[in-house]
Amino acid sequence: MQIEKIISPLGLLLCVAGLAMALPALVDLAQGNRDWQVFLISAFVAGGAGLFLHLGFRDRHSGWNRRDGFLFVSLSWLVMCSAGALPFYFAEVKMTPVDAFFESVSGLTTTGSTVMSQLDRLPPGILLWRSLLQWIGGVGIVVLSVFLFPFLKLGGQSLFAMESSDTAEKSFSRFEEYAVRILWLYVGLTLACILTYNALGMSFFDAANHAMATLSTGGYGTSDISFAKFNSVPILWAGTVFMFLGGMPFMFMLFMLSSKRRFFDIQIAYYIGVIAASVFFLLIVLQANGTPVTSTLLASVTFTVVSIITTTGFVFQDFGVWPTSALFLIGLLTFLGACSGSTAGGLKMFRIVVFVAVCKSAVSRLLSPSSVRSMKYGDHVIDEEVVIAVIAFTLLYFATFLIGGVILTLTGNDLITAFSGSATALANVGPGLGGKIGPAFNFAGMSDIDKVVLSIEMLLGRLEIMSVVVMFAPGFWRD
Amino acid sequence: MQIEKIISPLGLLLCVAGLAMALPALVDLAQGNRDWQVFLISAFVAGGAGLFLHLGFRDRHSGWNRRDGFLFVSLSWLVMCSAGALPFYFAEVKMTPVDAFFESVSGLTTTGSTVMSQLDRLPPGILLWRSLLQWIGGVGIVVLSVFLFPFLKLGGQSLFAMESSDTAEKSFSRFEEYAVRILWLYVGLTLACILTYNALGMSFFDAANHAMATLSTGGYGTSDISFAKFNSVPILWAGTVFMFLGGMPFMFMLFMLSSKRRFFDIQIAYYIGVIAASVFFLLIVLQANGTPVTSTLLASVTFTVVSIITTTGFVFQDFGVWPTSALFLIGLLTFLGACSGSTAGGLKMFRIVVFVAVCKSAVSRLLSPSSVRSMKYGDHVIDEEVVIAVIAFTLLYFATFLIGGVILTLTGNDLITAFSGSATALANVGPGLGGKIGPAFNFAGMSDIDKVVLSIEMLLGRLEIMSVVVMFAPGFWRD
Repeated sequence: MQIEKIISPLGLLLCVAGLAMALPALVDLAQGNRDWQVFLISAFVAGGAGLFLHLGFRDRHSGWNRRDGFLFVSLSWLVMCSAGALPFYFAEVKMTPVDAFFESVSGLTTTGSTVMSQLDRLPPGILLWRSLLQWIGGVGIVVLSVFLFPFLKLGGQSLFAMESSDTAEKSFSRFEEYAVRILWLYVGLTLACILTYNALGMSFFDAANHAMATLSTGGYGTSDISFAKFNSVPILWAGTVFMFLGGMPFMFMLFMLSSKRRFFDIQIAYYIGVIAASVFFLLIVLQANGTPVTSTLLASVTFTVVSIITTTGFVFQDFGVWPTSALFLIGLLTFLGACSGSTAGGLKMFRIVVFVAVCKSAVSRLLSPSSVRSMKYGDHVIDEEVVIAVIAFTLLYFATFLIGGVILTLTGNDLITAFSGSATALANVGPGLGGKIGPAFNFAGMSDIDKVVLSIEMLLGRLEIMSVVVMFAPGFWRD
Repeated sequence: MQIEKIISPLGLLLCVAGLAMALPALVDLAQGNRDWQVFLISAFVAGGAGLFLHLGFRDRHSGWNRRDGFLFVSLSWLVMCSAGALPFYFAEVKMTPVDAFFESVSGLTTTGSTVMSQLDRLPPGILLWRSLLQWIGGVGIVVLSVFLFPFLKLGGQSLFAMESSDTAEKSFSRFEEYAVRILWLYVGLTLACILTYNALGMSFFDAANHAMATLSTGGYGTSDISFAKFNSVPILWAGTVFMFLGGMPFMFMLFMLSSKRRFFDIQIAYYIGVIAASVFFLLIVLQANGTPVTSTLLASVTFTVVSIITTTGFVFQDFGVWPTSALFLIGLLTFLGACSGSTAGGLKMFRIVVFVAVCKSAVSRLLSPSSVRSMKYGDHVIDEEVVIAVIAFTLLYFATFLIGGVILTLTGNDLITAFSGSATALANVGPGLGGKIGPAFNFAGMSDIDKVVLSIEMLLGRLEIMSVVVMFAPGFWRD
């Protein structure tokens, strides 16, 4: 295994990080905040190192095999998270190394759990940096899940392999064809979101930050009270729509726009169905609990459901005080996630589709064991390989959730904090439940060990677990 | 579908119930308690009806197909639970219909959750009846899981099909060969347990009741404080050993005794491994929490772990006050269950073996997608059909757990009560967690709706869910 094959693309990513750091530098400079020097130096360090690595190894990046792919997936996020932590460590906010890394990981994995408070008083550069991390992380995961994960056959995502992506070379020729379009779609949606938020009353700075955290389903904001800062029903609905779009499969949206090829992805029907059913359930539970159903409540509940299922994590209303059965539903939605090929985390809807197909198949086999009907994903037949991969992913997902949760109880957290924390980190959602990390709180109260555990879970969740696990398999490092 | 094919065996079961009721009648008569009339009348009603049905339909019970099998599984437990509830309703304790049914279901499914209190003051007949229900339910599930479930290919249990059981007729020829041996083994182990308990200081009546509730992994006792009544370390160890044997595959134990055929069932290694690891983890957690590790603590912790994993539910020490991470482990063990082919409930170890095989297979496919290695259960190759059935069972198991839990929150229970209650009922364990149904409490405080939900979950868990679900599939009732 020649690790040098992946150094050049990693360098390119660092250049992107460096370029991105120039933006908060400019904003802080314009506002006369001295953090601009921190961002500029970080930009030169990250960008310079990146350029050096990219150019120095650019002749050696061809001929990737699957193992290079896995290595690249893990290292790209690790390198970017480390670079992203620099400004948090050196800037005026002066965070501890653990806090800086946690905040950077939470940003790039589009989780949105924060250890920072009094956000309203922070200089604009560092706020913009948090949003930028999420925005970059968001498009990064879309590109990976469209091009690399199906090729790596990761967690059953080979379901979404384009016809010609069965070899690395062909996959990358498609890459050149579509990656730019995905980027433009992402930029276009973000601009539309900025303009909408701005038109509905957000300042341009707030609109830009929140739009980046919306499309990336990240959830960072510019205030400790998240969307409650704006207290506007139209803004809630706008946020709901753009979070929903962030949770949609980007290739599907591209195809719809280009009208080149018509297809329907069955996971979208599940996505919409789960949202509708959840809103309905919550309204009934809340009304039974004495909360009258108004148009504001409808907006707030829909916003909350979409925020959780898309793994964004914006908070408008403190749903931590909702009745028990509502909290349970929020906990369940935390696991589910939106569609594959989107910026969302979690189990993802396509796996639910596979689960349903497996159950249907098993019941029909019980009735007539001799006549085996094939399992279907929409019109596609699901082959055994995909089922095994989906199931293994789900098992490892829950094992990680349980191991993370038990470590968090061992460090002294209560059951609700430990397991909602483990779930929210792994699914890249953001807020947990309970009186410590619930929607009205942040993660500053967790210990350093907790933050490290949660950071690892955020990364594992974002990288679909198995791309990391496979590196510990005997044989991975052998030739 | 001719339902009359299964009426004769159902009648036979009612005869068994009637005969069993004669025992508490005798005991109450000997002790001068007037409940003996209730038991005698119930015995005549159940036994008479059973004899009538058995003889009336005895010519029509041959030629079962799979659907007859499913119908028999569900109806047998429903009929027996209804018959078993009669004494609770009519006897001196005068329970409500819901309470009587709950107690009977909890008995026959070998769950052991009770709505009765002040057990020490109850007449001996009704106490004996509770133990007898568990003892009958225990051997019933062993016989079903050895002979019928593999034939029905239920939840992946076709793994344990004896070579010749691929047709109903052959399966039933084996039935005649082995069912009696299983019964003798069960009786023998129960007698050994009675003698051991008695020798270690229990009264003969206590020893008989607890032995029946031990081998059936049921968990009913003769006192509100369960095993704390005896306060004896040797009795704890004796209980641990016999509960462990109740959770072992009975066919494996038969083969070991007959020395006819040597084989090793890999799930037993997992069973022992999980017990050892859990005891180790709990001792560390408890010591870190300031509880010195003594030989009494070791006995108590081992007893508790085996009690939960075998889904018995005996309580010696109020583990509800243990630290959070210990409670989490108890919660996890509640789901796991012991071995297939035993009296235990839960997911069962053989499914964990299949999970591990699926994960190993998925990771090795990630590394080299072209070279597919087959999944193994010990030396056996696991075919796709078993994997699909195991996964579907697991998904339906968790879906049932979640639906049950959410209904219990809607009726006003807190999260811990609702979900530990749902889990403990579905896995046929017994005690839940929290201040309402925890190990120091009972289920009397739950509402009637709660008790009905829990009864349904106990039955679904005991009957491996899918045997009930399949009856709601389109096509089941069609010819």
